[in-house]
Amino acid sequence: MITLSSDFGTPYPAAMKGVILQRSDARLVDVSHEFPRQDVRAAAFWLREVLPHFPPAVHLAVVDPGVGTDRAALVVRAGDHALVGPDNGLLLPVARRLADVDADVEVFEWTYEDPASHTFHGRDVFAPCAAAVHEAGVARIETLDAATPTDAYEGLTFPEPTLPTEEGEAPRGEVLVVDGFGNVVTNLPGSVLAGHYGDHVSVGGVVARVVRAYDTVDPGTRVVTVGSHGNVECAVNRGRGNRSFGLEAGDDVQLSF
Amino acid sequence: MITLSSDFGTPYPAAMKGVILQRSDARLVDVSHEFPRQDVRAAAFWLREVLPHFPPAVHLAVVDPGVGTDRAALVVRAGDHALVGPDNGLLLPVARRLADVDADVEVFEWTYEDPASHTFHGRDVFAPCAAAVHEAGVARIETLDAATPTDAYEGLTFPEPTLPTEEGEAPRGEVLVVDGFGNVVTNLPGSVLAGHYGDHVSVGGVVARVVRAYDTVDPGTRVVTVGSHGNVECAVNRGRGNRSFGLEAGDDVQLSF
Amino acid sequence: MITLSSDFGTPYPAAMKGVILQRSDARLVDVSHEFPRQDVRAAAFWLREVLPHFPPAVHLAVVDPGVGTDRAALVVRAGDHALVGPDNGLLLPVARRLADVDADVEVFEWTYEDPASHTFHGRDVFAPCAAAVHEAGVARIETLDAATPTDAYEGLTFPEPTLPTEEGEAPRGEVLVVDGFGNVVTNLPGSVLAGHYGDHVSVGGVVARVVRAYDTVDPGTRVVTVGSHGNVECAVNRGRGNRSFGLEAGDDVQLSF
Repeated sequence: MITLSSDFGTPYPAAMKGVILQRSDARLVDVSHEFPRQDVRAAAFWLREVLPHFPPAVHLAVVDPGVGTDRAALVVRAGDHALVGPDNGLLLPVARRLADVDADVEVFEWTYEDPASHTFHGRDVFAPCAAAVHEAGVARIETLDAATPTDAYEGLTFPEPTLPTEEGEAPRGEVLVVDGFGNVVTNLPGSVLAGHYGDHVSVGGVVARVVRAYDTVDPGTRVVTVGSHGNVECAVNRGRGNRSFGLEAGDDVQLSF
Repeated sequence: MITLSSDFGTPYPAAMKGVILQRSDARLVDVSHEFPRQDVRAAAFWLREVLPHFPPAVHLAVVDPGVGTDRAALVVRAGDHALVGPDNGLLLPVARRLADVDADVEVFEWTYEDPASHTFHGRDVFAPCAAAVHEAGVARIETLDAATPTDAYEGLTFPEPTLPTEEGEAPRGEVLVVDGFGNVVTNLPGSVLAGHYGDHVSVGGVVARVVRAYDTVDPGTRVVTVGSHGNVECAVNRGRGNRSFGLEAGDDVQLSF
Repeated sequence: MITLSSDFGTPYPAAMKGVILQRSDARLVDVSHEFPRQDVRAAAFWLREVLPHFPPAVHLAVVDPGVGTDRAALVVRAGDHALVGPDNGLLLPVARRLADVDADVEVFEWTYEDPASHTFHGRDVFAPCAAAVHEAGVARIETLDAATPTDAYEGLTFPEPTLPTEEGEAPRGEVLVVDGFGNVVTNLPGSVLAGHYGDHVSVGGVVARVVRAYDTVDPGTRVVTVGSHGNVECAVNRGRGNRSFGLEAGDDVQLSF
């Protein structure tokens, strides 16, 4: 199985699929091709949240503003999974989650020469690479001539929240992404809401009720809840939380109960 | 085969696919993940129009504004098909169409406990359920411990049009949905246009020609025709009917020939 | 394998898939269902660029403003591939590219009678046709009763650029499409940039740097480069070239070095 993720929209992902299908009969599953364009951090977040639900697979992921420059191509083995994509940090958060322990993340540089384009390595570098890794098998990446183990690669970490150490302190964090519903996903762990369900909370001055499910308040009403990723989420029942809270990716959030 | 439908946009449907693929090798086919958000009636309409074209399958469909509340999860057997989704009426119109007779619609409540989230039952409740139904087989839903036959479930019916009983009366109906082309789909049966092809019709004061095919008039010209669902549709050749007619879902329509 | 392309958006493509799956176990691969609506030329361009990356397959492609009129349905054999769609020129550019020589493009008219709708031949005519061609095999199209060889069909050619014949003349061409990134794809061959990398070029008065890769300039900076289709492309690093250059499909472009 090969999954495909990118910020390519359409129809570029189909070219990647064609290239793969010339080389492999692997089952193909789209994760998303609508990641925010050139936003490596947002894509890294979604990959980390979605890919661990899959059985062992090769995951092709291309959000690659540096395409055509000298940035490397990587293959990352993480447990029974392999990740293929550019060396810009995109693959690392999900790799750490897919591996049982950090030591199970092994990174290979993928050597490529003279691809057909400098603007579409998804088609010309990464798709052939994903097919080759799939055909060799995740356990046998090192048998591929183009794969060389490396310790020199870009990392990516999400901002850490500041959690209260004393009674009455306010948890402070950051908006990681806004999803398609307009739900504002923060980096605050859902555990900070414990003991506050049913109460009101102020998010930077915007007041909302702390609830377990969206539809426990009237439509159009603001809520703060725990999203499916386990983080605090600012939402509006049947509406768009980002607009109502005035929040977007990168904004600071502080919860005052 | 398992089909997937939702209002989730992206990338949430991929999490559902991963969960299913952990449990089943079923072929997966996306129907749509772009149903109007939280619009159960529109989604029920599209499911009714699209799913009957499929061979026997398990159809996972999640438009679920009540996620995380005490609304039930349902499995519906309709002929050789099974439908899996929330108990909010979404599954019933298509179930009645898939079944040869009403008696062939059998509804089961699907018991679930403590899902990982209160906000994403598509991933945590319905995807595992669809995989379980697929693996058991549509004919053997009752062998699954979590499935209990029930008569207590939400229905959903589309508004009925008022058809002429005498010469000269105007058919009156309602807009069910607007499609991606901007075509305005009403609940009026196409048969009301019989005998009027080539004539003009007034739709609430907006005049258009009654035609069999869009491209029988100049580009940008309004038409009234029979859409692929068999209902009267208000459209513009190579344009957007909703804007030109000033109509949206839920609006009344009256045809005066 | 059957690939699917259209301007249908959602959920209409799923009805085509259901119809095919009633008739065939073929692997289905979506190319795009977001081609610019009713824009046959843009779709023909993308088909020409994407489909040649696929292994031999049946390619269903429907951008069909003339649906329901007397325009014919075509099956085109091009090398080991078959193309199925309306007779409006859509299939010809890609057919010429898929075939090794022009003589390898063979066109058949596909006879159909009384489809269920006049507005959705993708579902009622072309999907059954694609399934039938797939089941018969690309090499055996002529064994199908509905397929009749024809020389009478619509062609489609892209505008030819005017290339310099003397030193100092400016290459002149046209914008073919704007992609989802906002990159402006012209019909000028990338070879016109040879010898100009690192220089500035004026595109109708808008100045940009000629580069090999987007990210060789600061974010937000205009570039002219060779896109993945081999043509000159006007882009903005991490931005939208169409807005910055003020260009859209059909516009003239002239490069002054």
